Amino acid sequence: MNEGAATGAMPRFLRACQRLPVDRTPVWFMRQAGRYMAVYRTMREKHSLLEICRQPELAAEVTLQPVKALGVDAAILFADILLPLIPMGAELEFAPGHGPVIHNPVRSHKDVSRIPPVDVEGDLGYVLKAIRILRTELPPEVPLIGFAGGPFTVASYLIEGRATRTFERTKGMMYSAPNAWHALLGRLAHTLADYLVAQIEAGAQAVQLFDSWVGALSPADYRAYVLPHSATVLRRVQALGVPTIHFATNTAALLSSMREAGGTVMGVDWRIPLDVAWKEIGEGLAIQGNLDPLALFSPREVLEAQVRRVLREAGDRPGHIFNLGHGILPATPVENVQAVVEMVHAFSLKEPGKVVL
Amino acid sequence: MNEGAATGAMPRFLRACQRLPVDRTPVWFMRQAGRYMAVYRTMREKHSLLEICRQPELAAEVTLQPVKALGVDAAILFADILLPLIPMGAELEFAPGHGPVIHNPVRSHKDVSRIPPVDVEGDLGYVLKAIRILRTELPPEVPLIGFAGGPFTVASYLIEGRATRTFERTKGMMYSAPNAWHALLGRLAHTLADYLVAQIEAGAQAVQLFDSWVGALSPADYRAYVLPHSATVLRRVQALGVPTIHFATNTAALLSSMREAGGTVMGVDWRIPLDVAWKEIGEGLAIQGNLDPLALFSPREVLEAQVRRVLREAGDRPGHIFNLGHGILPATPVENVQAVVEMVHAFSLKEPGKVVL
Repeated sequence: MNEGAATGAMPRFLRACQRLPVDRTPVWFMRQAGRYMAVYRTMREKHSLLEICRQPELAAEVTLQPVKALGVDAAILFADILLPLIPMGAELEFAPGHGPVIHNPVRSHKDVSRIPPVDVEGDLGYVLKAIRILRTELPPEVPLIGFAGGPFTVASYLIEGRATRTFERTKGMMYSAPNAWHALLGRLAHTLADYLVAQIEAGAQAVQLFDSWVGALSPADYRAYVLPHSATVLRRVQALGVPTIHFATNTAALLSSMREAGGTVMGVDWRIPLDVAWKEIGEGLAIQGNLDPLALFSPREVLEAQVRRVLREAGDRPGHIFNLGHGILPATPVENVQAVVEMVHAFSLKEPGKVVL
Repeated sequence: MNEGAATGAMPRFLRACQRLPVDRTPVWFMRQAGRYMAVYRTMREKHSLLEICRQPELAAEVTLQPVKALGVDAAILFADILLPLIPMGAELEFAPGHGPVIHNPVRSHKDVSRIPPVDVEGDLGYVLKAIRILRTELPPEVPLIGFAGGPFTVASYLIEGRATRTFERTKGMMYSAPNAWHALLGRLAHTLADYLVAQIEAGAQAVQLFDSWVGALSPADYRAYVLPHSATVLRRVQALGVPTIHFATNTAALLSSMREAGGTVMGVDWRIPLDVAWKEIGEGLAIQGNLDPLALFSPREVLEAQVRRVLREAGDRPGHIFNLGHGILPATPVENVQAVVEMVHAFSLKEPGKVVL
């Protein structure tokens, strides 16, 4: 799959992040290690999600599964965006069928002030150990992506105590207790920045900030309540010089503000065509996306047309990383995920003198 | 509240729909009759949602509640977007705490072909009767808005059988069984158009098409799978000459396609500033929106700043109808809803020779 990069050249994923020309468009998938793979489901029969995250050998093994099975151009560390909340005092549980639950949600300024500081090496060392294992096990042409949740998204779980459609308590704190809100986001930003910096120092070759739910905000509220905190995280990380992917969903009208917050690659969902999005974020950044995860449930010819459309909308200039617009869903047929990797590599092949697509 | 219109002039809501100058910006709220009002909760102790919808006197009474309590500039018929599915054979239930459930969802082309035709006057006459009652009871300065769900949104409930975050089965049919999909959307479009036309003939002075969930689609998929069917509905309705509000959420990158589908007023959510949205849809249309419903949970000064921002982004040209970006939530403090009506009317007052805001 990655024959071109096996010679010691810079891997195509990292080249694309830097907007350098590539032989083929690199591709990876958010949540590429997960329930849609039989080998993962088998492991989950023996271990809980948190057990896998906390045992570096298991986390590394799960991270490697899609690299072997799919031939993707990047590996993303197997972990959960809520892990940093555990040393911050959250009683986190992944209840089967209900997603994450936090039994002691943060609701007041007093709750915020009780959050203990996090020592990443001591409290989240298992994540760093998984990264160190992976850097010895991954082939050189497959870079490792570390990640963290964005301050807004992590705060929303911490405040609501569970997934939410309306963000009632989150926006409630934002509007009604702005001091508590900014104190919380400030603490989260500090911890998440420390966490990402430690991941990079442990060997992550790129990082993604998943601010998945920030598209629930108006642009004005994003700028007032979130941008400064996301910028704190992204500035710290960008100073280390590795590519930084800034991702969220429902952001068609937020992209210029997210660009202002930071990141060297913008991750966008399928709700905005890549050409429109790229125009919005500007030529100076790379772009990642944006197939609808539900397209992976389609017959092959429909899937192919969708993949071709995404590549066409990305256009010919360097700096496109193919991905979904959000994570792979558990019921996704694995053969369709494999097919997308093959399609992206085949359709984007740059043969000298021949225009493909 | 509506003293200016009581003289027999065209009500300010209808003037704004036609982009005519108004004395004050008109305001109404999606789901303005509902659980956030004590009088509604009391009625719900005695009657189910479907009972209220099916008893025209009760539906009319509920419709009038916010007109009396809030001083809004328009009434919206109390009904549910899924009512037309009942004569189409859906076993619809509103399960407490779970939202709508359809016990016999449509999953195949065969299921679609079994859907019986709907005789609106016979099958949904109770809705029309409520409209006729309301037109005798509403003050002349408060126009009555009829409504229907958009073909995509109604189809999603019919296919999924319940609310969904991922639209897995909906998009599944769209991508994997396009003939079944287009047959279903065609039938829905026909029925929804008949239904809206009958509402207008019964006395509705404007109609809104709620395609609330269509923002789950990429613009390319919207154009291929939905636009033609929404256009069928909107063309039939617009031919009657009453204002037609085309509303959905998460549509920042869909607005130009939605405009192509039709409508004389575009309803947008809070995720896009009104000035940006209006530029996108073009000067020829009016615009409705777009306060975040969660802003109604804020302290007065925060709420006031948000209302002022929406009015500022709407600007000075005629054609803005103030509303939320989605429906009022059940826990909303009623006094804040009242306050927004007062603020909108006060802040937008056009005094000759004086610039307000």
